[in-house]
Amino acid sequence: MNRSSGYTLEELGLRIEARVVGDSDRLIHSLATLQTAGPGQLSFFANSRYLKQLKASKAEAVLVTEAHLDDVQGSALVVADPYLAFARLTHLFDWRDPCSPGIHPSASIDPAASVSPDAEVGAGVVIAAGTQVEAGVVIGANTSIGRDCRLGSGTRLEAGVTLYPKVRVGERVLIHSGAVIGADGFGFAPDRKGGWVKICQLGGVLIEDDVEIGAGTTIDRGALDDTHIERGVKLDNQVQVAHNVRIGEGTAIAGCTAIAGSTKIGRHCTIAGMSGITGHLEIADGTHVTAMTLVSRSITEPGAYSSGTGIEPHQQWKRNVVRFRQLDELARRVRKLENRLEHISTEGQKDDGC
Amino acid sequence: MNRSSGYTLEELGLRIEARVVGDSDRLIHSLATLQTAGPGQLSFFANSRYLKQLKASKAEAVLVTEAHLDDVQGSALVVADPYLAFARLTHLFDWRDPCSPGIHPSASIDPAASVSPDAEVGAGVVIAAGTQVEAGVVIGANTSIGRDCRLGSGTRLEAGVTLYPKVRVGERVLIHSGAVIGADGFGFAPDRKGGWVKICQLGGVLIEDDVEIGAGTTIDRGALDDTHIERGVKLDNQVQVAHNVRIGEGTAIAGCTAIAGSTKIGRHCTIAGMSGITGHLEIADGTHVTAMTLVSRSITEPGAYSSGTGIEPHQQWKRNVVRFRQLDELARRVRKLENRLEHISTEGQKDDGC
Amino acid sequence: MNRSSGYTLEELGLRIEARVVGDSDRLIHSLATLQTAGPGQLSFFANSRYLKQLKASKAEAVLVTEAHLDDVQGSALVVADPYLAFARLTHLFDWRDPCSPGIHPSASIDPAASVSPDAEVGAGVVIAAGTQVEAGVVIGANTSIGRDCRLGSGTRLEAGVTLYPKVRVGERVLIHSGAVIGADGFGFAPDRKGGWVKICQLGGVLIEDDVEIGAGTTIDRGALDDTHIERGVKLDNQVQVAHNVRIGEGTAIAGCTAIAGSTKIGRHCTIAGMSGITGHLEIADGTHVTAMTLVSRSITEPGAYSSGTGIEPHQQWKRNVVRFRQLDELARRVRKLENRLEHISTEGQKDDGC
Repeated sequence: MNRSSGYTLEELGLRIEARVVGDSDRLIHSLATLQTAGPGQLSFFANSRYLKQLKASKAEAVLVTEAHLDDVQGSALVVADPYLAFARLTHLFDWRDPCSPGIHPSASIDPAASVSPDAEVGAGVVIAAGTQVEAGVVIGANTSIGRDCRLGSGTRLEAGVTLYPKVRVGERVLIHSGAVIGADGFGFAPDRKGGWVKICQLGGVLIEDDVEIGAGTTIDRGALDDTHIERGVKLDNQVQVAHNVRIGEGTAIAGCTAIAGSTKIGRHCTIAGMSGITGHLEIADGTHVTAMTLVSRSITEPGAYSSGTGIEPHQQWKRNVVRFRQLDELARRVRKLENRLEHISTEGQKDDGC
Repeated sequence: MNRSSGYTLEELGLRIEARVVGDSDRLIHSLATLQTAGPGQLSFFANSRYLKQLKASKAEAVLVTEAHLDDVQGSALVVADPYLAFARLTHLFDWRDPCSPGIHPSASIDPAASVSPDAEVGAGVVIAAGTQVEAGVVIGANTSIGRDCRLGSGTRLEAGVTLYPKVRVGERVLIHSGAVIGADGFGFAPDRKGGWVKICQLGGVLIEDDVEIGAGTTIDRGALDDTHIERGVKLDNQVQVAHNVRIGEGTAIAGCTAIAGSTKIGRHCTIAGMSGITGHLEIADGTHVTAMTLVSRSITEPGAYSSGTGIEPHQQWKRNVVRFRQLDELARRVRKLENRLEHISTEGQKDDGC
Repeated sequence: MNRSSGYTLEELGLRIEARVVGDSDRLIHSLATLQTAGPGQLSFFANSRYLKQLKASKAEAVLVTEAHLDDVQGSALVVADPYLAFARLTHLFDWRDPCSPGIHPSASIDPAASVSPDAEVGAGVVIAAGTQVEAGVVIGANTSIGRDCRLGSGTRLEAGVTLYPKVRVGERVLIHSGAVIGADGFGFAPDRKGGWVKICQLGGVLIEDDVEIGAGTTIDRGALDDTHIERGVKLDNQVQVAHNVRIGEGTAIAGCTAIAGSTKIGRHCTIAGMSGITGHLEIADGTHVTAMTLVSRSITEPGAYSSGTGIEPHQQWKRNVVRFRQLDELARRVRKLENRLEHISTEGQKDDGC
């Protein structure tokens, strides 16, 4: 979008149902943080930690709740949820161009592919036979799409994405550069000579509407059935999704998390970065996993879960790590102490009783 | 492969030396899990956890051991190792087309490269001077291959792979999209002003026959000698292999594992996902490492190894993490208690002796 | 560089201000390790662990300090810091060709882009409008560069790199294959129906001079301000840098480390592989973090920091993991024991006092 003339506060207020306090004709040409915003810029206040910055902000206008209206120096857009309102307004100032239909002459499109005349296909793009590209789809430079894929309307693949054959993608999906969708799941059967026989991965990948997939993220095709990413799932960069995983609607997974084969993650979960989830598990709806946690068993109750230890100075940590290796023994020694003390007390009581 | 007419049970039985029980003329057109299989589909039973599914399966036929023949509802292919037999049969139903020799007109091949007329080179592929591509090689769309590489016969590079110069790849190797082979190892010498002087990485990468390399996996070139991946190694997605690592024959490494420089991993090891192996180590043949383990010392005895802590509810975990920081002190306190109790007991005995 | 005739020891000595001991006319054609070096090869001795190899080395010449001159069998180049001298000399033997100006005919360059006639643009490269490419820049095959980027002089993008719009890269920067710079930061606001509203990422990425970025590394664009990589930063492969992170001058970060949003990492830090750094932290200059550490709080004092536990045999580890879950309870039991023992001692003293 990004209208070069900007938007009046009145226009912005109407978009997000905000009450405008101040001069509603003032033009907003961009968004900025409380600290850096100046004339013509709109900011937002969504975390009380930044109250000092709000009071000092030189922003033309600020998105705030009623409660903090008095702390605003310039104009205000009063809303119930400033963070959500800010999110909505960012779409007016985005750098992405709308779909500009047409096929770049350097693209290689198989005659047996079907590309909507209302789709945009960038330079160096390769599309194989049997693939359907719907209206409003944007495909970035040097992206490769295998056979028999489908890209639903309004979906956007950035530059350098790879889709293997038989990947079905819904509408309004955003896939970032370097993502690889539909590579073979990691499946091998041991033979009798210490080698491995590859299990060809015969399933596909199904990605529902409104999903976002981060840069360098890999989602493997299923062994027999499909790997399945439900509606509204958000995956950050460098996430690894193994074969036959299913991720439930609205779940968000932060960077570098890996999910092993056949695990089912519930709806509306939030998984922090660098977590690992082992295979064949079920994770309840609404589960939260903290950063760098290893989830090695199914989770049946929603709630927050963690593993690992906290950061500490290296020398101190080294001593504690040695003790961790002795922890079972330490626990046995404590039990022994308790027993002996129990014995001494009993003896003492007997003595007292004499 | 994937013959559209399917295969009779007799044909399949001959391929894997199975005994056919039932109507050997029945056609199998695809493979499926016990739960989803129906008429014309073959399934397999390899894990007693799924006995209920076996008994209820509507599969046309099932791969089973003799012991479970009576639990099969339809026809059966009786084998010693159903999982291995299943792996072998997946190759008959794979979606990959065989090599279709020819060079796509949009490919850019340096005149000083040597590409077999029996190789298949996809759209947008770039091949630099001095590189040899043997018969039966398939190179996917938009893949880039640097100078003086070699791709052995039957090797397949999927779309969007990158090979730096001087990467030698054996026969029947499969490299998935987004993999980068031969980037510079991470080598810098500190100068006297707090900066870094790059150590140019002068070695290459050697990949032996029958290796598979997952999507987004990176294997760096050696500093002076080659990084070396031995025969039959299987690397999952997003694995990081640093310079001068050597991985022994038949070793399998799951997703997102990282191996630091100059480490030698033995033969027939299995390394679970998200593990980290620090540099200059030696890992014994037949070692198994569990998920998200940090291997920070050499392993001289085969066996299973682990590090980290188990998952638990976040609030409980927080309390235990605090205690971990005090673990060395706790151990000292237990020792003190033991000493004092020893003393008390001795005193007690002395008293008794009075 | 890589002059095919090689360099005399005298020439090499002049480059690094070394004293030549031996025949200064001898030609060095390549570098090698102490173990593998032979005639015509130069090696280096920088770690006393390799003294045996030094004494047995068949290298034509070795880079050594004065102190170890007597241990050298062939000629020697005597320097204060052999590792640094070796790093400098590797540049003479590198396989990278110097910039060979020109644009490959298969490249797609927008007429509104500005590419220096002294830059090299490889096959299949795509450059969008508004982007400036300075002299001496080398852009590898199938690399895609979005709108309004800038590549400073002497910068090199290997094959298959992706730059989103508005990424500014300084001079002499090296970006490896598969790296994605400027993808959207992971920002979403929860709406009231359990879904997510995308926060468009309106900032860019600023990469200063002399930075190196590893294969498959992802650096997200800022939400409003830029993500910022300062001068001389070195990032290994598969590093994830989230939106609005700032990494201070000269900091080196090893493979597979992830840094969450808005964290500021100081100057001259060294972060080992697979570490995770959570969001909105500040890490002091000169901090060292060991492998697979989770940094979950700001670090105000330089020094070494760690988290996690050490590797141990799996069965033993399992017992200790169980005890970790009981650690808080164990600590309470020890406290109780201490109290009871205190009580018993006091009682004992009272008894004594009778």
